[in-house]
Amino acid sequence: MIVIMDVHATEKDLERLNERIRELGYTPHTIRGDDRLVVGITGNTGTEGRMHLEGLPGVLQVIRITKPYKLASRETKPENSVVDVGGVKFGDGNLVVCAGPCAVETREQTIRIAKIVADRGAHLLRGGAFKPRTSPYAFQGLGEKGLEILAEAREITGLPLVTEVVDPGTVTLVGQYADMLQIGTRNMQNFSLLREVGKLGKPVLMKRGMSATLEETLMSAEYLMSHGAHDVVVCERGVRTFTSHARNTLDVSVIPAFKKLSHLPIIVDPSHASGSRETVIPLALAGIGAGADGLLVDVHDDPDHALVDGPQALLPDGFQDLMDVAARVSTALGKSIASHRPAVAERA
Amino acid sequence: MIVIMDVHATEKDLERLNERIRELGYTPHTIRGDDRLVVGITGNTGTEGRMHLEGLPGVLQVIRITKPYKLASRETKPENSVVDVGGVKFGDGNLVVCAGPCAVETREQTIRIAKIVADRGAHLLRGGAFKPRTSPYAFQGLGEKGLEILAEAREITGLPLVTEVVDPGTVTLVGQYADMLQIGTRNMQNFSLLREVGKLGKPVLMKRGMSATLEETLMSAEYLMSHGAHDVVVCERGVRTFTSHARNTLDVSVIPAFKKLSHLPIIVDPSHASGSRETVIPLALAGIGAGADGLLVDVHDDPDHALVDGPQALLPDGFQDLMDVAARVSTALGKSIASHRPAVAERA
Amino acid sequence: MIVIMDVHATEKDLERLNERIRELGYTPHTIRGDDRLVVGITGNTGTEGRMHLEGLPGVLQVIRITKPYKLASRETKPENSVVDVGGVKFGDGNLVVCAGPCAVETREQTIRIAKIVADRGAHLLRGGAFKPRTSPYAFQGLGEKGLEILAEAREITGLPLVTEVVDPGTVTLVGQYADMLQIGTRNMQNFSLLREVGKLGKPVLMKRGMSATLEETLMSAEYLMSHGAHDVVVCERGVRTFTSHARNTLDVSVIPAFKKLSHLPIIVDPSHASGSRETVIPLALAGIGAGADGLLVDVHDDPDHALVDGPQALLPDGFQDLMDVAARVSTALGKSIASHRPAVAERA
Amino acid sequence: MIVIMDVHATEKDLERLNERIRELGYTPHTIRGDDRLVVGITGNTGTEGRMHLEGLPGVLQVIRITKPYKLASRETKPENSVVDVGGVKFGDGNLVVCAGPCAVETREQTIRIAKIVADRGAHLLRGGAFKPRTSPYAFQGLGEKGLEILAEAREITGLPLVTEVVDPGTVTLVGQYADMLQIGTRNMQNFSLLREVGKLGKPVLMKRGMSATLEETLMSAEYLMSHGAHDVVVCERGVRTFTSHARNTLDVSVIPAFKKLSHLPIIVDPSHASGSRETVIPLALAGIGAGADGLLVDVHDDPDHALVDGPQALLPDGFQDLMDVAARVSTALGKSIASHRPAVAERA
Repeated sequence: MIVIMDVHATEKDLERLNERIRELGYTPHTIRGDDRLVVGITGNTGTEGRMHLEGLPGVLQVIRITKPYKLASRETKPENSVVDVGGVKFGDGNLVVCAGPCAVETREQTIRIAKIVADRGAHLLRGGAFKPRTSPYAFQGLGEKGLEILAEAREITGLPLVTEVVDPGTVTLVGQYADMLQIGTRNMQNFSLLREVGKLGKPVLMKRGMSATLEETLMSAEYLMSHGAHDVVVCERGVRTFTSHARNTLDVSVIPAFKKLSHLPIIVDPSHASGSRETVIPLALAGIGAGADGLLVDVHDDPDHALVDGPQALLPDGFQDLMDVAARVSTALGKSIASHRPAVAERA
Repeated sequence: MIVIMDVHATEKDLERLNERIRELGYTPHTIRGDDRLVVGITGNTGTEGRMHLEGLPGVLQVIRITKPYKLASRETKPENSVVDVGGVKFGDGNLVVCAGPCAVETREQTIRIAKIVADRGAHLLRGGAFKPRTSPYAFQGLGEKGLEILAEAREITGLPLVTEVVDPGTVTLVGQYADMLQIGTRNMQNFSLLREVGKLGKPVLMKRGMSATLEETLMSAEYLMSHGAHDVVVCERGVRTFTSHARNTLDVSVIPAFKKLSHLPIIVDPSHASGSRETVIPLALAGIGAGADGLLVDVHDDPDHALVDGPQALLPDGFQDLMDVAARVSTALGKSIASHRPAVAERA
Repeated sequence: MIVIMDVHATEKDLERLNERIRELGYTPHTIRGDDRLVVGITGNTGTEGRMHLEGLPGVLQVIRITKPYKLASRETKPENSVVDVGGVKFGDGNLVVCAGPCAVETREQTIRIAKIVADRGAHLLRGGAFKPRTSPYAFQGLGEKGLEILAEAREITGLPLVTEVVDPGTVTLVGQYADMLQIGTRNMQNFSLLREVGKLGKPVLMKRGMSATLEETLMSAEYLMSHGAHDVVVCERGVRTFTSHARNTLDVSVIPAFKKLSHLPIIVDPSHASGSRETVIPLALAGIGAGADGLLVDVHDDPDHALVDGPQALLPDGFQDLMDVAARVSTALGKSIASHRPAVAERA
Repeated sequence: MIVIMDVHATEKDLERLNERIRELGYTPHTIRGDDRLVVGITGNTGTEGRMHLEGLPGVLQVIRITKPYKLASRETKPENSVVDVGGVKFGDGNLVVCAGPCAVETREQTIRIAKIVADRGAHLLRGGAFKPRTSPYAFQGLGEKGLEILAEAREITGLPLVTEVVDPGTVTLVGQYADMLQIGTRNMQNFSLLREVGKLGKPVLMKRGMSATLEETLMSAEYLMSHGAHDVVVCERGVRTFTSHARNTLDVSVIPAFKKLSHLPIIVDPSHASGSRETVIPLALAGIGAGADGLLVDVHDDPDHALVDGPQALLPDGFQDLMDVAARVSTALGKSIASHRPAVAERA
């Protein structure tokens, strides 16, 4: 922690500050610059968040140096983490594709789409049984019935399952079905939910909040990890900015920035970033170009009748196009998009 | 709902669109402009959210006209709503001040500060027993013990109590103590929580999400109302923007905009918007100037040792200053800040 | 300047850094914390912006301490500056109101509106002869003819004149007519223009850029001041954020933050922040509450036929209402809105 | 143009609105929905921007349909435009790379770096002689001397030259040296400059403003085109958002959105978006993935001593890496990065 003094700070201000620092059990180190004083603070700074030096006379600014997250930090664990979900490996240098309908609507729809994405090379099946909706009057998901359908689709396709959990009270239930639990963007700072999902210990796909800073995103990953879920994959799905030409602004720059600070894998969701089918592939390729470890994509074979987010779902042919071009670009980047799963033959 | 066609749209595109509209049970009305076609759609549009016309050939844009919220809308209820919390009336044209510590730390601290704010004219006591914190390592609140302390502080001061609830599982518990339940900014779109709080039916103070649009804010109020809680007060507490000179950007323009669209009261939280004691009063006055129905203010008599958000808490003298100037400005605006509560004498 | 080292930085990294610092003529001061090294740098840091230490091995972050602006800084000049424009004083503790049409359209319209605002107590006349318009097809202003009309309106009303300059080539021309030159929001970082306006030396009203940080705003004021224009008044007119319920987001929090860092006066433009007549007064009062030294307001007596920004112009009666309530709120805040000008009688 | 009426609008309100529309020479078309009235307006709507219907009683919202730009619009010109700069073709389906130092510092530095980028396959030489700097105390460029150096570097390498113009008064001068004039991000709405550059008629590289919407970007392109410069290339260089992990937020989603609305080419500047050498390549690849027609990249062989933006400049080896991987990814996307210029042999 570093304290920058006002140019008009007096020696008395400095003394008072240093006394306070010592009182708190730390050691002050004064640096006298040409136009102002700076005080560095050393000592066991585990609780330094509570030093409250800002209000002291002559203090201009207090700069925290120690990062508030540990388990998610690359300083703690320099090598990349690989998150294994039923044999699919996020962060091993290759590209993982999670695909499926935004919401489970019916058994037929879900199984049909699950087969479509499996046949075209997806590695995980995505699909929501509990849907957080902006409107109280919109379809809220099938609940446990939806989880059963997803489990059946997994059975048939062999694809491990990632599905959202929205309530601390249903974490155990969702955990009985899901291979990976998804935390939605609106719940990234639902700390009660993070705690319960953390305790479950299963792999987690945590979407970045709509206006979450990189540090807040890492702090939410830290919640999960500190409660027991160490297999965390973060997902960039677009942030909220002044623009309106896309549903959200896909922040590709967070990918290299995240990888610098953390050892965890990070993927992108081009569907929710785009909001419109025709721009999903460009955004997916942008994410791959920026270094994402995977994709999360909405696919639907009858999007005109989809109950949730139909306009952004890729059609089966579009998904095939995405897989083809993603494979070529991945190869150009020295990555593979080949199946991490047991051979397709075995599934059949 | 209005459909704008591309300038290159053909008559065939128009026919197909109109067929589709009729198929869905609505009536198309074509307007032929000089450079393009526009189709207005009438009929019972309760489910129009699912028409999926965007993808049809020749369609440039689809504009939704019907607002997705009803209960919160001023179109439904033209006159202002007054929310009564233990005799304190939000929205009756006067200014309501909710004040107290950010968090309940100890019995002594809470009762001491409750007395301070009551003596200086606050109308409601605020204080958190369950604290949503960005860091898993930070103080998370005293839980039920904190609620008991708050209830005792209410007993002593006579001030009704507003306190936060963070988890659907503790809504009933918090409801046993609180006169008004607070939904925090990070939970404004925690729909599971909104549903449970809505079912309880007690008055709710709902903070606007950090990057919530006005429509999203109204939709979250609609969640509460449609589940049974009709006494909703919204709180603007600053939004996230590119600036860093304040903790958040207090969006005063949302106040008149909200009042135009909704009959519900809206107050401001200058403490969380500011992040720094010295700018709380200017922001409070800005909110009052913009037409806010009340204030939510952090007060602490020993902020250097506060466990949460000490730097933004007003000291007792600062709170007195705020009450004095707020009273003068309210009078200038034709409002009153006089107590809505039973006479102070009765409380003593 | 402070350098924070990576936790994995070696002694060798430290040596290399310190050598480099000494090579550049500065003195390094190493502080050894529990988990990382920090190096403070002292010496004449006038050019420290070019030290380029970020790329050295082991360096995590470089924090600049010295502020990049001097003349605009309160550290350089602790007391408030008062900017005198033809006898009207910005920053003397009272409220200055600049009002008039957004654009000069005709001689009659301008003189008529100038009289309206003068009669209702405005202190300066505003009006644009050169209009920066988003569309090349929109009315671009009357140019020099407009300046002549404004000068005539000044003659008649006695109100000093503030008008916009958009081009380095017309600074001298505009300076022949204007008492105060306005820099528009889109030109806040038009450095060629700032230089020329600075050289002229007349008072300047500089609008904050649409997404300018506080530091950038101060740097642009510094451009003006370092080239000779020391009488600078800054104007907050709303910034660009994710919201759409107002034309711009009036950032009231910048007012106390600006006043902390700078001695210059700051006013608000509620008209351009709002975009809609009915919310101009609430935003004006919000600005006054936050501590603004004045207002810049669009007024038009026939806004339906205004060539620019009609929907946001106050009608004469609305302007009277604003002046009345602004006077009452100013009084409540210990300010005055009484005329700073020669007595109205003299003007008549 | 479409007018949406309030649910409480009366027949009288409707009559008054329709009269007004007819008065203005247009035709109203009333659509009676279940809960509200909507009025479509047809007629020659060239000036519809000035209809001022918002203020009429019963009017809730006015929606403009006609786009305010014509020349830049894909509706006007459906096929992609190709902008030819000295034989280099932007928008022909291949990738164009503009590279060089951010600023011309000395003759030696410029020629040295020009050779480096030419040898590694760049198609255009970039470099600034006039530099818009946030600080009045920072290096402002060499001016005409810098232009002469750039011309010499062009002579030696054969690379056409793109360089920035910052002032309407120097447009002719810059035009004598440059093959393509660059408009900087802070000048995107400097309309005086756009007019002069437009009149010159040479190819223009126009950077998107730091918080410009897509429509504003197109309007500025329209300024250039309507004044005579039809060869406009737009450059996305990152926008300003709440994040701070990159210098700016590269908005890749603007690329497909821009291409949908306009026929003009669009490239990305990963250097200014990133601000840091180590993330330039991921952002460049993100831009290519999203469909950009080219790159604008800072390269420096001694960035520690660069006068401007050293930390973001690629080193020669880094630029080689970028060219290699950009070539592979372009191929994967069916594009080429091969030289559009006369054979290298000819240049030697």
